[in-house]
Amino acid sequence: MSKTIAINAGSSSLKWQLYQMPEETVLAKGIIERIGLDDAISTVKFDGRSESQTLSIKDHTVAVKLLLEDLKRFGIISDFSEITGVGHRVVAGGEIFKQSALVTDEVLAQVEELAALAPLHNPANAAGIRAFREILPDITSVVVFDTAFHASMPEVAYRYPLEDKYYTDYQVRKYGAHGTSHFYVAQQAADILGKPLEDLKLITAHIGNGVSLTAVDGGKSVDTSMGFTPLAGPMMGTRSGDIDPAIIPYLVEHVPGLDDAAAVINVLNKESGILGVTGRTNDMRDLEAGVEAGDPKCQLAYDMFADRLKKFIGQYLAVLNGADALVFTAGIGENAANLRAKIVEGLTWFGLDIDPEKNVFGTTGIISTDAARVKVLVVPTDEELVIARDVEALRG
Amino acid sequence: MSKTIAINAGSSSLKWQLYQMPEETVLAKGIIERIGLDDAISTVKFDGRSESQTLSIKDHTVAVKLLLEDLKRFGIISDFSEITGVGHRVVAGGEIFKQSALVTDEVLAQVEELAALAPLHNPANAAGIRAFREILPDITSVVVFDTAFHASMPEVAYRYPLEDKYYTDYQVRKYGAHGTSHFYVAQQAADILGKPLEDLKLITAHIGNGVSLTAVDGGKSVDTSMGFTPLAGPMMGTRSGDIDPAIIPYLVEHVPGLDDAAAVINVLNKESGILGVTGRTNDMRDLEAGVEAGDPKCQLAYDMFADRLKKFIGQYLAVLNGADALVFTAGIGENAANLRAKIVEGLTWFGLDIDPEKNVFGTTGIISTDAARVKVLVVPTDEELVIARDVEALRG
Repeated sequence: MSKTIAINAGSSSLKWQLYQMPEETVLAKGIIERIGLDDAISTVKFDGRSESQTLSIKDHTVAVKLLLEDLKRFGIISDFSEITGVGHRVVAGGEIFKQSALVTDEVLAQVEELAALAPLHNPANAAGIRAFREILPDITSVVVFDTAFHASMPEVAYRYPLEDKYYTDYQVRKYGAHGTSHFYVAQQAADILGKPLEDLKLITAHIGNGVSLTAVDGGKSVDTSMGFTPLAGPMMGTRSGDIDPAIIPYLVEHVPGLDDAAAVINVLNKESGILGVTGRTNDMRDLEAGVEAGDPKCQLAYDMFADRLKKFIGQYLAVLNGADALVFTAGIGENAANLRAKIVEGLTWFGLDIDPEKNVFGTTGIISTDAARVKVLVVPTDEELVIARDVEALRG
Repeated sequence: MSKTIAINAGSSSLKWQLYQMPEETVLAKGIIERIGLDDAISTVKFDGRSESQTLSIKDHTVAVKLLLEDLKRFGIISDFSEITGVGHRVVAGGEIFKQSALVTDEVLAQVEELAALAPLHNPANAAGIRAFREILPDITSVVVFDTAFHASMPEVAYRYPLEDKYYTDYQVRKYGAHGTSHFYVAQQAADILGKPLEDLKLITAHIGNGVSLTAVDGGKSVDTSMGFTPLAGPMMGTRSGDIDPAIIPYLVEHVPGLDDAAAVINVLNKESGILGVTGRTNDMRDLEAGVEAGDPKCQLAYDMFADRLKKFIGQYLAVLNGADALVFTAGIGENAANLRAKIVEGLTWFGLDIDPEKNVFGTTGIISTDAARVKVLVVPTDEELVIARDVEALRG
């Protein structure tokens, strides 16, 4: 009987989920937001209850202490010794980490060195790791990388058409992201299809506020849409995705206030995508309501969002030379039935065909017709469970 | 009986081709290079002869005078009055020019104003127009835009996922390029297939040192791979094509000598693509020789080049929801039979299938098997002929 906690630390937040392992039961989960401020908020959900408190939280160490004490306070655990493992999501594993790893001083130093590749994320991830090492130094501590699943990509996919030195000296290559999600839903899809993952060609479409698609061949990522950073790929909630790179110096030259490339990239990351085109929302439900109400900007954003997804599905059908199934997951992918229908309706030539009776809100599993050449699935993702499993596997 | 000259003016060069119309016979063609220097070179080809001279050429007006005098000197024309029309290729037509136009003072001013969208090309194109207006003021003068064929793209394709103002105030959208080539080979493909262009879905792949693909639905461009500038799209001879835009500020921050976004874009335009990856050539014949010789960098560049093309074909199959034919054109598309085979071999699931006996160097027409669901064609492009035809059509 062991309890494992999965941690996703951001610069001012800490999301966590506590599992009973190996049963994989979720005992509690929560989020601490506004770390560093006097009015930080901690929310704990367990047994159908949701408890929130507002208080001053100086740093990630204080946040971790708080969440552990809350676990005792709410009777979720009776002693810290019940927690035998912690798994930390880390955004960038670079070329060092091709799989999850036990945390050592060296591993922690490497996570921090990889901050060049994920300046907003890796330092926060490292802060979460340090906090747990200070408070619970003896439990199994594991790092799980968002990039690791994509380590199997061939050079032809991960290299950019640039001079060698940008790769060898500056580590510029495609790393991808959402790896644990793509890996998890690919496994689940194989179960649902009743075939070994090794025998399947899948396109996994993780569509949340961030969007990435992966071509999965025999269980391995062979191409993915996020690139050197999570800006690349199709249009997203607030990110532009791929655009002509030459737009960047043009905007620097012509737009007051956009003084350098970094300022433009900030706009492309935070003020573009659905938010940019609609001018008011990055939420798919708001967007669908706007389309319903006949708002032309919402209609354009919705159509563009579907168009870019469809193009990536076409790309990965070409990479794989055909696929057994297309798998929708994450916030939008799991819930936006109309969007799924719109995408698939534009791909009937390929043998994708959705069954409208199956493609409803709240569904999971196969939503294509029996005759469809390429099956279409909805699979809820569970990145925290992958983290908890990796902790158990490495606890030995 | 009229003679029409098609002009493609660059910043220091002027390519020309003289036609007998309406017979469409090429009477002569040539190029003047190193305009502005004391050792400029003018080459004239006619009747199987090639005549070159090196001399000082101050500007485009001097170049035009020289070429016209050469036409007399070599007996290709006996009097300037035989030339009844001139057509000028212009790279950027912005949103103003959706088709070819007669040159007026206003049109010339607009071509110059559009230089913001093509700073290297439109001023040179305008210099060519001015030179002809000075020397042959009374002939029909027409501008033919590289972007015009793509004016039919729907908003969902030409808009970027950015805030409105970047489109409305700064004209940032997809314009595309190689329009006359895509238009010409689409028409030719319809003739070869024996079907009306209006009834066909085509993917036209212009693969030269610049590369662009277009989804052509019923004779209209509905999407194309070049974007705001010709940097976008698949990997090219010296251009990277699409890459994660966030790479740009990263390189500015980390690479000595790359001080701003414009410097990085210069690298992406001129030192990347096949040249960047091989470190030594952007020539497909050199590249194929390198692959033959077992050079790993050449192999990587070759595989990446084919991979990016394959992905764009997959994209446009998705945009069109299936296609009747894939059309290869331009320097590489027309000649690199092995590359064509490599691309199509990765797309057999879609019903593309090449006949190795037809897919040989020097071939034109259909190269797919009779059973192929999507036909594959080789069609030599002829942008100059499109220009000459447009001059005739507007000469009225």
